[in-house]
Amino acid sequence: MAELLYQGKTKEMWTTDDPEVLRAVYKDDATALDGLKHDVFQNKGELDAEISSLVFEYLMKHGVKTHFIKRLSKNEQLVKKVKMIDLEVVTRNIAAGSFCKRYGLKEEGEKLDTPVEELFMKSDALHDPLMNESDAIAFHLLTHEEHEQIWEISRQVNQLLTKLFADAGMLLVDFKVEFGTLPNGEVVLADEFSPDNCRLWDMETKDHMDKDVYRRQIGNLIDVYERVLARLKDALAKED
Amino acid sequence: MAELLYQGKTKEMWTTDDPEVLRAVYKDDATALDGLKHDVFQNKGELDAEISSLVFEYLMKHGVKTHFIKRLSKNEQLVKKVKMIDLEVVTRNIAAGSFCKRYGLKEEGEKLDTPVEELFMKSDALHDPLMNESDAIAFHLLTHEEHEQIWEISRQVNQLLTKLFADAGMLLVDFKVEFGTLPNGEVVLADEFSPDNCRLWDMETKDHMDKDVYRRQIGNLIDVYERVLARLKDALAKED
Ligand SMILES: Nc1ncnc2c1ncn2[C@@H]1O[C@H](COP(=O)(O)OP(=O)(O)O)[C@@H](O)[C@H]1O
Ligand SMILES: Nc1ncnc2c1ncn2[C@@H]1O[C@H](COP(=O)(O)OP(=O)(O)O)[C@@H](O)[C@H]1O
Ligand SMILES: [Mg+2]
Ligand SMILES: [Mg+2]
Repeated sequence: MAELLYQGKTKEMWTTDDPEVLRAVYKDDATALDGLKHDVFQNKGELDAEISSLVFEYLMKHGVKTHFIKRLSKNEQLVKKVKMIDLEVVTRNIAAGSFCKRYGLKEEGEKLDTPVEELFMKSDALHDPLMNESDAIAFHLLTHEEHEQIWEISRQVNQLLTKLFADAGMLLVDFKVEFGTLPNGEVVLADEFSPDNCRLWDMETKDHMDKDVYRRQIGNLIDVYERVLARLKDALAKED
Repeated sequence: MAELLYQGKTKEMWTTDDPEVLRAVYKDDATALDGLKHDVFQNKGELDAEISSLVFEYLMKHGVKTHFIKRLSKNEQLVKKVKMIDLEVVTRNIAAGSFCKRYGLKEEGEKLDTPVEELFMKSDALHDPLMNESDAIAFHLLTHEEHEQIWEISRQVNQLLTKLFADAGMLLVDFKVEFGTLPNGEVVLADEFSPDNCRLWDMETKDHMDKDVYRRQIGNLIDVYERVLARLKDALAKED
């Protein structure tokens, strides 16, 4: 019998008959401000699941190792069960959001001369504090080798998706991903990739096409996510 | 004529006849809470200057490259003028202070399995935010090579001073140092090393023997700094 392994803010993770496989159910919930802000948008789960499935398929086609097996239904995926590395792994190409406030050195929209690579501890109560490699290693969240691997994969992801989203008329400003290890120890990209966990700006207008429209109350989340999906499909069709 | 180059919270930096040499004048000021708390303690400048001079001489004797030239008077030093790397470079052997609050994973006094190495931006207004290597590089605060060098020197400092302070009956819990580059590009340890910028605990009683007695109002700063100096002199005398 399927068992609910983890009830997250936007996904449920269920066991399957295969102990090495989980079913991810994308929910319609949106949250912000460390979980203080919460709303439900019909179809959000389906949109996230479809965008994330397309992105993971694209990444795997180009050699990135991930947990993804296949999309199961509109809002469900099968994924390989991994031991999660309990860190948010953030890459920034353009300054935005908390990064601007934290250092006061770059305005939102300023391009960074080199991509910024940041780890955050997953803790709403402590407001996801920034961590560096030595912190994470001292806390046994990962090893030095795993640290090398997550950044190697993140750089691959950044290169591939910067190009893919550019083909879809969008700037990949920044993104947060999560990693896990397979039973054989291999590090793979896990969790999801959707407008919930990245910033996408329209290349021409610089309009926000991601969860910031919800966080900052500057647009309709569903409209925006539908536009991202449509553009992504166009770009992928041209790819083939 | 000597010119005041920099008026800091605890030191003044003066030019000298030699354009490559500065005179550091240690003041009697103590500050905490991002400069909000401020007091003056007679003799503090002399104590800091003497402790820092002894520590820098010891480090140089053991091969560490520093800005230090010599102690000039009770509260003055001659140092090589460097281009400062605008970062606080922190090494932690035992969890304490802000580190415990930031992550809530270690209690004050818990030994870290591996030393933690952290960079902080110097900004009282932003409460000295944590930075990682890629942030610092994107902001052009240092290069990748300089980042390697500051940690190589910091590790040397940690090894040498952990032993020296242990010989003096104290645990080196954590410390903050600063670095600069000489005109030839070489990275050297600069600024100071005193109980103002490290945590020292009595090995037996775990009593605080550093600026925490002032920050936390749990002791007399001058008494404590005098005890540190006396113990350090004893340990150094045994060294020879
Ligand atoms: N392949 C996987 N195996 C095991 N756990 C995973 C996998 N992919 C993602 N997860 C975890 O499942 C949860 C997904 O639910 P989500 O709603 O995103 O959680 P959260 O509220 O923690 O962000 C996350 O805790 C994520 O770390
Ligand atoms: N060798 C050096 N050459 C130039 N500047 C130095 C050198 N050593 C230290 N400094 C700088 O001199 C100042 C020392 O004063 P201090 O009171 O410690 O300043 P702060 O209030 O910034 O901590 C610091 O800004 C430090 O970076
Ligand atoms: Mg999540
Ligand atoms: Mg200082």
